[in-house]
Amino acid sequence: MERTLTVGLQERSYPIHIGSGLLPKLGEYLKAQLRSLRYAVVSDDNVAALYGQSVLDSLKSAGLSGELFTFPAGESSKRLATVEELARAMTLSGFDRGNVIIALGGGVSGDMAGFLAAIYMRGIPFVQVPTSLLAQVDSSVGGKTGVDLAEGKNLLGTFYQPKLVLIDTEVLRTLPTDQLLSGMGEVIKYGVSLDASLFHYLDQHREELLALDEACLNYVITRCCDLKARVVEEDEREGGLRRVLNFGHTIGHAVEAAANFSLLHGFAVSVGMVAIAAVSARCGYAPPDLEAEIARLLAAFGLPTSIPAGLSRERISAFMQADKKNMGRRLFFVLPTELGKVMVTDQVDRAALQQVLESA
Amino acid sequence: MERTLTVGLQERSYPIHIGSGLLPKLGEYLKAQLRSLRYAVVSDDNVAALYGQSVLDSLKSAGLSGELFTFPAGESSKRLATVEELARAMTLSGFDRGNVIIALGGGVSGDMAGFLAAIYMRGIPFVQVPTSLLAQVDSSVGGKTGVDLAEGKNLLGTFYQPKLVLIDTEVLRTLPTDQLLSGMGEVIKYGVSLDASLFHYLDQHREELLALDEACLNYVITRCCDLKARVVEEDEREGGLRRVLNFGHTIGHAVEAAANFSLLHGFAVSVGMVAIAAVSARCGYAPPDLEAEIARLLAAFGLPTSIPAGLSRERISAFMQADKKNMGRRLFFVLPTELGKVMVTDQVDRAALQQVLESA
Repeated sequence: MERTLTVGLQERSYPIHIGSGLLPKLGEYLKAQLRSLRYAVVSDDNVAALYGQSVLDSLKSAGLSGELFTFPAGESSKRLATVEELARAMTLSGFDRGNVIIALGGGVSGDMAGFLAAIYMRGIPFVQVPTSLLAQVDSSVGGKTGVDLAEGKNLLGTFYQPKLVLIDTEVLRTLPTDQLLSGMGEVIKYGVSLDASLFHYLDQHREELLALDEACLNYVITRCCDLKARVVEEDEREGGLRRVLNFGHTIGHAVEAAANFSLLHGFAVSVGMVAIAAVSARCGYAPPDLEAEIARLLAAFGLPTSIPAGLSRERISAFMQADKKNMGRRLFFVLPTELGKVMVTDQVDRAALQQVLESA
Repeated sequence: MERTLTVGLQERSYPIHIGSGLLPKLGEYLKAQLRSLRYAVVSDDNVAALYGQSVLDSLKSAGLSGELFTFPAGESSKRLATVEELARAMTLSGFDRGNVIIALGGGVSGDMAGFLAAIYMRGIPFVQVPTSLLAQVDSSVGGKTGVDLAEGKNLLGTFYQPKLVLIDTEVLRTLPTDQLLSGMGEVIKYGVSLDASLFHYLDQHREELLALDEACLNYVITRCCDLKARVVEEDEREGGLRRVLNFGHTIGHAVEAAANFSLLHGFAVSVGMVAIAAVSARCGYAPPDLEAEIARLLAAFGLPTSIPAGLSRERISAFMQADKKNMGRRLFFVLPTELGKVMVTDQVDRAALQQVLESA
């Protein structure tokens, strides 16, 4: 079973190949779709140990050459210093403008290797091979790349589209459970914000999904990528519509930052979705039972639905104000209005927001 | 006297304002052409001491707010670490996606501040205010931004166009003489490679130019910017035609690197132009007297015309091979064919090249 979607962005269009057991076919895909014979595989040391050799073997079988460049796993590696080390190593190995980077791994690898590709010799092509659920349904599609500063996540970056995304759902079998659930947080986000039928599907197939049933996983990941692709096609550089993808993220990011990133991203988004549904209801944009409906599904997947006790509400508010999506001092919120529908506004009653933060 | 050119790149088009005493008008230009009320002025400490306050005053007079961010002068600052420091300082001052960076200074400031703008919060607008002749006629126009690695110059960067370029020829009065001459190297490059009439003009007005005669300077800088703008319009991302701008640079860059950058850029380009003219003649592409004609004008401006004695020819060859313009292992050369005309080829007789390097 194998599906191919296309992200349609004129000369920057690219395919997303989704299926179980696709990794060994990577070399063939590259050979058929790109011109380079030489590939720099960028990955963290955990993922490199699991899949680095398979990727190199796959390249070799297709008559391509590959070289592995690794960095220590974890968000703390997602810095300019790591980008510089990788770039220097690639230069010393003679990688030039005609070569291609393969980002192999989760969100950190994808964001950082994509950023490296965007700036290496003023830009070389790159390919996303996401190995976490979060990266498969979200960060590998759409061209957001970047690194963190001490002051906040993703504060430096570019919009730079990959040439190809290859999603092998088989690799999720080696993903730690909490990482899988974190990805489910983003999956549920698509249901709540853009697709009520996906929401119901997730509700009905929860057990199969958590057991990594192949057909269910492929369906859900394809659906999420398709939803994301359609949004990115309309608004590549987040001038407007793309903001809907930040549903659950305005409060979620602030919670994540206030907790010093001890909370996984999808967990923070889970909390953020419930909180913003409560805000939406208080402001009269959503029916009062929407919050409970969202919280019910999240909880069924083992995701948190309230802000961890003991987390300073002042800190959360401060991080929200500092969010980089802040444009000219206006803070945009993505409010759910019914299952599968959201609205974007900077008109949110601050008292309602405050009450929700304090009670959530 | 004030002229405005346009670099026509559809939605990325921008004006170049050229004139004497324009700096105090910067605020007015920004107010009329951009929407931001807040500007980060990025400059090295030398230029900041000379012109930082005038820029801030000009912004203030126009009702705009500005804040100065400085770094130590010199090529050694042109690194990712400096970009990170500047970005952190901007974040702490609350600069967001709605704000604008002003790159004030020579090539290092322009390249690095432009790169910072390209990646700060995934890209904010920026403005070039070049204060060296080299930056005024070359690096401020065309959108090449970047930083160096230990392994070579400009190995990381982007193509990212400014929103406006403001060239005040008055500021050249504070430029050290060797920097002025280095800029003249690039000016002469335009004459030799693209415009025989400019070559003759430079020949006839050498004394006025070196005495910074206002009318002559304005004419020459406008001419160079116009030539560059037309090339960039045809080939923004250096897929082909833009390579002509690298005339004198393939050997020049290698000489510069082999000399550990003790030679100013324009001086290295000067040497490179004479050498490549000799190669062109040996390969039968240029008449035998072209080299002497080019060397004569360069020498009249006090620029070097031969590779410094004692510089290892092997080192120069090695740096040429490693040049980032190397695409898929092919090395392109820009050969002069007559005054004002060049051809781009990767078919250069290596024996001829070797002989020239050894005799130059």
